[in-house]
Amino acid sequence: MPSKNIYLSSKSIETALEEYFQYLEGFFERYREKEIDTGTALGQVTSEPVTACISSPHFNASAMDGIALDASKTFGASERNRIRLIEGRDYVEVDTGDPIPAGCNAVIMREDLIDAGEGQVDIIKGATPWQHIRVIGEDIVQGEMIIPAFHRIRPVDLGALLAGGVNSVKVIDKPRVAVIPTGTELVMPGQPLEEGNLIEYNSHIFAGLIEEWGGNPDRIPPVADDYGLILEALQKAVKEHDMVIINAGSSAGREDFTRDIIAEMGEVLTHGIAVRPGKPAVLGKIDGKPVIGIPGYPVSAFVVMENIVKPLIYKYLHRTVSMPVITEAVCSRRIVSSLKNKEFVRVKLGRVGEKLIATPLTRGAGVVMSLVRADGMLVIPQNSEGIDAGEKIGVKLLKNIEDINNTIVCTGSHDPILDLLANEIHSASPELYMASAHVGSMGGIMALQKGEAHMAGIHLLDEETGTYNASYIKRYFGEGKIALVKLVDRIQGFIVKKGNPKNVRTFADLTRQDVAFVNRQKGSGTRMLLDFNLRKSNIASRDIAGYDREEFTHMAVAAAVAFSDIDAGLGVYSAAAALDLDFIPLYREEYDLAVPVEYLEQPNIKVLLDIIRSREFRDKVNKIKGYSTDKTGQIVEV
Amino acid sequence: MPSKNIYLSSKSIETALEEYFQYLEGFFERYREKEIDTGTALGQVTSEPVTACISSPHFNASAMDGIALDASKTFGASERNRIRLIEGRDYVEVDTGDPIPAGCNAVIMREDLIDAGEGQVDIIKGATPWQHIRVIGEDIVQGEMIIPAFHRIRPVDLGALLAGGVNSVKVIDKPRVAVIPTGTELVMPGQPLEEGNLIEYNSHIFAGLIEEWGGNPDRIPPVADDYGLILEALQKAVKEHDMVIINAGSSAGREDFTRDIIAEMGEVLTHGIAVRPGKPAVLGKIDGKPVIGIPGYPVSAFVVMENIVKPLIYKYLHRTVSMPVITEAVCSRRIVSSLKNKEFVRVKLGRVGEKLIATPLTRGAGVVMSLVRADGMLVIPQNSEGIDAGEKIGVKLLKNIEDINNTIVCTGSHDPILDLLANEIHSASPELYMASAHVGSMGGIMALQKGEAHMAGIHLLDEETGTYNASYIKRYFGEGKIALVKLVDRIQGFIVKKGNPKNVRTFADLTRQDVAFVNRQKGSGTRMLLDFNLRKSNIASRDIAGYDREEFTHMAVAAAVAFSDIDAGLGVYSAAAALDLDFIPLYREEYDLAVPVEYLEQPNIKVLLDIIRSREFRDKVNKIKGYSTDKTGQIVEV
Repeated sequence: MPSKNIYLSSKSIETALEEYFQYLEGFFERYREKEIDTGTALGQVTSEPVTACISSPHFNASAMDGIALDASKTFGASERNRIRLIEGRDYVEVDTGDPIPAGCNAVIMREDLIDAGEGQVDIIKGATPWQHIRVIGEDIVQGEMIIPAFHRIRPVDLGALLAGGVNSVKVIDKPRVAVIPTGTELVMPGQPLEEGNLIEYNSHIFAGLIEEWGGNPDRIPPVADDYGLILEALQKAVKEHDMVIINAGSSAGREDFTRDIIAEMGEVLTHGIAVRPGKPAVLGKIDGKPVIGIPGYPVSAFVVMENIVKPLIYKYLHRTVSMPVITEAVCSRRIVSSLKNKEFVRVKLGRVGEKLIATPLTRGAGVVMSLVRADGMLVIPQNSEGIDAGEKIGVKLLKNIEDINNTIVCTGSHDPILDLLANEIHSASPELYMASAHVGSMGGIMALQKGEAHMAGIHLLDEETGTYNASYIKRYFGEGKIALVKLVDRIQGFIVKKGNPKNVRTFADLTRQDVAFVNRQKGSGTRMLLDFNLRKSNIASRDIAGYDREEFTHMAVAAAVAFSDIDAGLGVYSAAAALDLDFIPLYREEYDLAVPVEYLEQPNIKVLLDIIRSREFRDKVNKIKGYSTDKTGQIVEV
Repeated sequence: MPSKNIYLSSKSIETALEEYFQYLEGFFERYREKEIDTGTALGQVTSEPVTACISSPHFNASAMDGIALDASKTFGASERNRIRLIEGRDYVEVDTGDPIPAGCNAVIMREDLIDAGEGQVDIIKGATPWQHIRVIGEDIVQGEMIIPAFHRIRPVDLGALLAGGVNSVKVIDKPRVAVIPTGTELVMPGQPLEEGNLIEYNSHIFAGLIEEWGGNPDRIPPVADDYGLILEALQKAVKEHDMVIINAGSSAGREDFTRDIIAEMGEVLTHGIAVRPGKPAVLGKIDGKPVIGIPGYPVSAFVVMENIVKPLIYKYLHRTVSMPVITEAVCSRRIVSSLKNKEFVRVKLGRVGEKLIATPLTRGAGVVMSLVRADGMLVIPQNSEGIDAGEKIGVKLLKNIEDINNTIVCTGSHDPILDLLANEIHSASPELYMASAHVGSMGGIMALQKGEAHMAGIHLLDEETGTYNASYIKRYFGEGKIALVKLVDRIQGFIVKKGNPKNVRTFADLTRQDVAFVNRQKGSGTRMLLDFNLRKSNIASRDIAGYDREEFTHMAVAAAVAFSDIDAGLGVYSAAAALDLDFIPLYREEYDLAVPVEYLEQPNIKVLLDIIRSREFRDKVNKIKGYSTDKTGQIVEV
């Protein structure tokens, strides 16, 4: 089997970027300039200093409602020596903004005038020359610089420019960045999907980022994995754009052409950066323009976009990339990292008690949802072996800290009702969020023990008493510490294909040769329920095909049954119903939220409890198959 | 003279906003929903939770380049017990992303294969079932929630939505906000300007802010100060928009109709907020929609926009306003504030040594440039009498702290060359800024003494020796502390109207009845030069008409001469030349930068010194009239 002998470099990301900037020398000074209407210049970056064409105000103007006059007529006025002034002869009435008539050099406010009837007023205090007058150029002086070169125009700048008579400005034309998705498997969103196809969505992420950073993205239609076709697309893109991004094909596989094509048309400076995910990036140039090969997995791509493409666009626009907000958090789990690479780990963040808890999300580079769910990004430096559980670490925030502080952290078993609850709470109180991490019922108990969650979703059957949850709480926490908030009764059973073609009805059926099973992860209540029943029925787990394949949620189990050759899984009715599958009910179980008693009175938790107890919430739950809400909202102190 | 007896309320801004939110009850739930293409949804706010239409991946896919096979064929493989696999019979070659063929349940990476020639490979390690396979729904499970309701769509969300087969999303239609400028004096930018006219630019600031906050602004053409016309415009605007802003006319003057018109068409809840600037705001509603009267001065308007309109738009979009970044700074001057109002003061910020120095900018509400120049906003609470010089205060940042930390603070005398220098340094090193505060030469000396500036621009004539600057430095700092960086020699003289119609040539001419003068502020070198000469010529300052009218820069003096009835001022040649005025040269003086010796080696200052010493800089200076660069860049240690 052929294997290309290409070794990726292991430059640090900082070195790679610094070298790339030097290598592109001159590129950053060859920006295109354009002149645009000031009214449309919001967010644009000036290419030269902008000076005022006229002064503002352009005449001496009254700063008050009152009268304009020659100050010398007021000298000597006092309580004892009122001075009477006559309209027309001594003063002219003016409103704020009115021009100061010739011969006048002061304004007296209306409040300081004593009405003497018929166009006459008295004053009891002299006016100082130029008082309450906005003199010419008080705000802006003609010829004065309003904003410097390489300044990003803000709303107030628009105002000052227009006030200074500047009706058009020269700006850097936004860099045109071509994004070329490559891959024979790619189809556009909305097109029919076949097995092996992949929806081309990376270019939309890239375009969004480029736009946010001040560039002008251009998404090119996907190009098949064909050397000639990619070369052709790249030639066209380089001609018409300032920078080009080629997505995927940047590694060293059979169909990874990016490196070679850039090298053929121009030069490759760097192939491979010591960063995970994101390692197989290609940094090159063609005709003096940067051309960057970006890995295909969305998280890898995101890391390279953030760390290479963003600084590139900012430098082109002569803007500084601001340092990210770094916040100290406590890592809830051990993370092992390679010494060879700097590693970016997506984390969920939650404020539990005094501590900000960072819980790593999946490290799979292909999981775009880990970027969606992330509240922060944790950076493990090169030359570090990782982070210990409980270690204090700096996390780059991806959300407002207020939102994170207002997030109820629910860790434990998964039930689709948690998504519903998260929505209800955010809709009722937009400043509140609920984040649930799916680590199984026992994982939830552990999180509560370590003070890393506000609550845990659990459904744990006591095999001896046949009751749910309370005995586990007693065993792990003793009495008086944790309350059980009854959420729902739900039905567990076999999720099977529509019509149940393999006729799966009992645990014994799972051992049949023709039945493929999918399991839940260890520590989940559902897995414990399965194991309990296998022991009861004297069934060996090794006799079940698929016992080792683990999914983390009910929906993932249902999806495996619906869309692959899996025949059965154990899960809740609602998951089967959501994908229109058949369901063999087995057990009714109690799914509760375990909440430390001290949190029950916390304002955010009280909002949550109010929602759980509301008629609307119960109505919504009852519309979903497989739940009952008889006890919903009851609080049982253990 | 008529005076309306309207007293403004003095509600705190917090109370006003809270009451307004309650008063508008229901408005925030009556948002309009629309369904849009996912590809165009960046920055939009979802109006309902979005769930995946398909799983991603939607088939079991290889996560590696390698071979797919049934894992059971590999059990028992080891170094000693190589297992040979035959293509077609035992395995299928797969690339990353390829579907896993039926009957296969594991992938072995290409790196782990030993080529045995002719479609055969050996392995020395068993594969575990499902290894290197991205199972269906690994990223997104059909039916799973991708993003919740009231979530602002980011680039990564776009990717996840498209990956989940979501090609359109329901979002909150951006609130349409009408901005109605009122005022008979208003003219549109670019239109001919007459005395008394004001360029209508506030609506552009408002529109920019509304856009940044997620609203959809609609600038209505200016309406004259006429009750009927404004009423008509407001009726139309309320019908077609979700919120309406009326600019100016919100106070209690003769032509301030905003309050009455809102009250006629609907209701006014609040007129007057205890905030400076911004006090005369009007908060009302018509047909259940918020209608807000905003004061005319741009800084007042900005404060009301930020503190009332922004929270309103955010609440409509169900977004939280994030807390501003507050940084501790040292106030360089005493600020007196009224107990009655919360006060917002614009400040320049600079990092000098360890201290972050906040220097208040003008407090004039009409000075839009104070918003442009501000690095931060300092809030003086209601019930506080103000802030002492040297007091530590919290400042809301309006710029990146990195940019502030990289700002060279030059305080002292003003010369137009400083603007040039500021530009040159930012162009050469986009991460560097230079900010100059114009407080006169003596003000600069004081700032250096207090450690509040990196350098001071000075031109101080020693009346005894006829030399410049060095003797002042010695007197105030002793020897060895401060170096003088020679910047330019420049010519001071009388700035007079084109053709010098009043024939002003000597200081004695200034006392003539027909000559109007404009002065510079106390402490400026130019003022000291004037006073020195008046003493020398035995002229009393009271004999000069305009001696008391002070401007803060050379350009402001030149503008007063150019555009008003002022005949003469003392200033530099370059300012006269910039406005095409005549100039009567009097003195050649040395304008230097006084820099503490310890700063000379600081990296940012070194960049500045390199620029001052460069041939390019001198060439640019020499193109401006009235300067000579013979000594430019020399460093004189005092």
